[in-house]
Amino acid sequence: MEMKRCLISELNNRSGETVFLKGWIERRRDHGKLIFLDLRDRSGEVQCVVIPDALEAYETAKHARGEYIVSICGTVKDRPVSASRDDTTGKVEIEVKEMVIFSAPSGELPIDISQLDMNVNLDTLLNYRALTLRNKKVRKIFELYAVVLEAYANFMRSEGFREIKTPKILSSVTEGGANFFKIKYFDREAYLAQSPQFYKQAGVGIFERVFEIGSVFRAEPHFTTRHVNEYIGLDAEMGFIEGIEDVMNILEGSIFAMVRLVENRCPEICKIYGTEIPKLVSIPRIPLAEAVEILQFEYGKILENMDIDSEGERLIGQYVKKKYDSDFVFLTHYPSHLRPFYSFPSKNSEFTETFDLLFRGLEIASGGQRIHKYGQLISNIQKHGMNPEDFSSYLDIFRYGMPPHGGFGLGSERIVQQFLGLGSIKEAILFPRDVKRLSP
Amino acid sequence: MEMKRCLISELNNRSGETVFLKGWIERRRDHGKLIFLDLRDRSGEVQCVVIPDALEAYETAKHARGEYIVSICGTVKDRPVSASRDDTTGKVEIEVKEMVIFSAPSGELPIDISQLDMNVNLDTLLNYRALTLRNKKVRKIFELYAVVLEAYANFMRSEGFREIKTPKILSSVTEGGANFFKIKYFDREAYLAQSPQFYKQAGVGIFERVFEIGSVFRAEPHFTTRHVNEYIGLDAEMGFIEGIEDVMNILEGSIFAMVRLVENRCPEICKIYGTEIPKLVSIPRIPLAEAVEILQFEYGKILENMDIDSEGERLIGQYVKKKYDSDFVFLTHYPSHLRPFYSFPSKNSEFTETFDLLFRGLEIASGGQRIHKYGQLISNIQKHGMNPEDFSSYLDIFRYGMPPHGGFGLGSERIVQQFLGLGSIKEAILFPRDVKRLSP
Repeated sequence: MEMKRCLISELNNRSGETVFLKGWIERRRDHGKLIFLDLRDRSGEVQCVVIPDALEAYETAKHARGEYIVSICGTVKDRPVSASRDDTTGKVEIEVKEMVIFSAPSGELPIDISQLDMNVNLDTLLNYRALTLRNKKVRKIFELYAVVLEAYANFMRSEGFREIKTPKILSSVTEGGANFFKIKYFDREAYLAQSPQFYKQAGVGIFERVFEIGSVFRAEPHFTTRHVNEYIGLDAEMGFIEGIEDVMNILEGSIFAMVRLVENRCPEICKIYGTEIPKLVSIPRIPLAEAVEILQFEYGKILENMDIDSEGERLIGQYVKKKYDSDFVFLTHYPSHLRPFYSFPSKNSEFTETFDLLFRGLEIASGGQRIHKYGQLISNIQKHGMNPEDFSSYLDIFRYGMPPHGGFGLGSERIVQQFLGLGSIKEAILFPRDVKRLSP
Repeated sequence: MEMKRCLISELNNRSGETVFLKGWIERRRDHGKLIFLDLRDRSGEVQCVVIPDALEAYETAKHARGEYIVSICGTVKDRPVSASRDDTTGKVEIEVKEMVIFSAPSGELPIDISQLDMNVNLDTLLNYRALTLRNKKVRKIFELYAVVLEAYANFMRSEGFREIKTPKILSSVTEGGANFFKIKYFDREAYLAQSPQFYKQAGVGIFERVFEIGSVFRAEPHFTTRHVNEYIGLDAEMGFIEGIEDVMNILEGSIFAMVRLVENRCPEICKIYGTEIPKLVSIPRIPLAEAVEILQFEYGKILENMDIDSEGERLIGQYVKKKYDSDFVFLTHYPSHLRPFYSFPSKNSEFTETFDLLFRGLEIASGGQRIHKYGQLISNIQKHGMNPEDFSSYLDIFRYGMPPHGGFGLGSERIVQQFLGLGSIKEAILFPRDVKRLSP
């Protein structure tokens, strides 16, 4: 009869016991007649030693290579203390008694994933994704990603936000522009959602505070390190705000909740990537007009029409790090020509009650207060050169009455990219989509 | 200076205090010279009384109607005990001192949403969605929906499943068939994901246990009470299973976690809908072949090719309720001609190691063990009349080695539909999509 499987994370303090493990062989090393196998399962890693006396198991182990999937029956031993000990494989090891191979790679693996750094370029990393994702350093990215999702949802719930799911197939384009994908929807055309903007605003009319974690599709022909054509947006919208400070407070709270949970759950991840866990200092809030002056005065950089570019964002990121020791900064009050029609105008109506949030110099979120009055919204649609009739079901929300409200959209993958200093956002997505890449 | 806003849920035991509330007027009633306003915010409802002595507030209250959005300053009073008391508006009431209208509906509302039952047909309910969703009974559906999402994610995490997000734009059709939507993706064609099947299987190779909450798109030209063209799937996949019992155990656990959280958080919801909270009795597991015999013997219903239809599912639901007092039933071991090519064959290879889960006679989940061996998968693709070359990036997963694994996909909206006995699944979706409906 087969023993009950034991997880690697459950091995500590069980010295002398016989256990039954299942998992992947991370790597195999031979020292004299001993065979060392690093075994991983979903919970961790452990070193297994196979000695020639183990006869059958030894014969089996001779065949085993990286990514072989096996079960191992063996005895837990406290691991000899050693100056050269590899921290990652824990305080115990397994002396193997029996070993069974479940599954083996068919032929040679195209890439050696057993070393922490694989030294492959981005295309190779993505072309062999189902394999390269098994590499330890790569896997860690998605442990962090899952923590970010969990922290966000839990924080929003604790602040009274209701989780909603809104449609991704739309009859018309919400945000305008040309960056939408067209679908054949039975006998007509439809579009993929560029954001849940209109629906989350409707959500405020229903629940006052809503959040959504969902797919966002952008048909932008970009080839940059920070754009992809499909991503997961962390959206929120809240009613009865006094102004954008209320919205920024919630966004700041959600970011700090992520940082805390990362620190608590996987502090080693940033170490592996050579980055620091961000400090929880109150995030500076700088009007864009002031940021433009800072860029000119401190860095000699001049911006046309206040349209801050990625270099400008990077420099402002450096500036606030130096001056406030903050990895984050809010830039506020963007000019209205740079913001969508639903943005709430500032007292000086050339500006809007909006903001971006930068993390280490990269925009990770955009938000602001929205116009909540029916008549004002209609005239602002016209001011932006559009036709209110194209927005009739959106405008209905405001005919039924809406409180002052605002919200934000966060790019989940950019958060992870900046946490770990990844060269491309695509490294923070399991199977990324760009202009040229639709598989795997 | 404005006072700090108080939530309605924070009013108990504050008798005598002056508080500042914001929210929606749910309904207004006049009794003699008194005006009664039921105010709702995200946290609850409270009755507010405006007396003529309140002068300005009284004048304002005279204008207020349902869905007016207001702020109210008033005194908390213990509510007189009354046999006719409306349970839903709590133990305290507010004597209004000041009242400000933020926003009012523009013109008459097209539907009276102030009564618990609106008595509108499904089309009206969906055509005026941003309004009808504000109705109390309708809103409750989505309180329950949010609880289902939260319970699912928390349970899966507690069982060691990693949350993943996989792409919804694909270069080829995963499950075969014709029920896919085509997209124009820059200069080529692409497809919307019919399921995260292949990607979650890849996830097993990486993390051993994964789950995903994400959009699923099905181009089925159905006009039924249980189909929509876009929904939210709750997917899971797990490695190192002994068989489908392990998968059904996890699915059963996630369902029970939902039931428990509903009972804990919103026990009144089922009461409003006149349904019972399901009992947590171990879910019966009946081979489909046996279910076919039960249908014939107990209900005189004969099935062709074991292809159980919705009436058959409904009857089996009745049968297990009567016999086991269970609202759920697993039907297992479907014939291979009814299941996708990746289904693990049973010992008798005309059958598969698969199952469906029914909730009150409606299929809410499908799952099973998958083929994990490369060669076997290739030959099964051919057996199903397809070409392995069309599945090359999927097959790569298995070339790298995979443990025995299985999983399931749950339809989140069908769970809610069955919890509350909703006539159509569309009632369980904020903004549903069907063959004819793409807006609002």
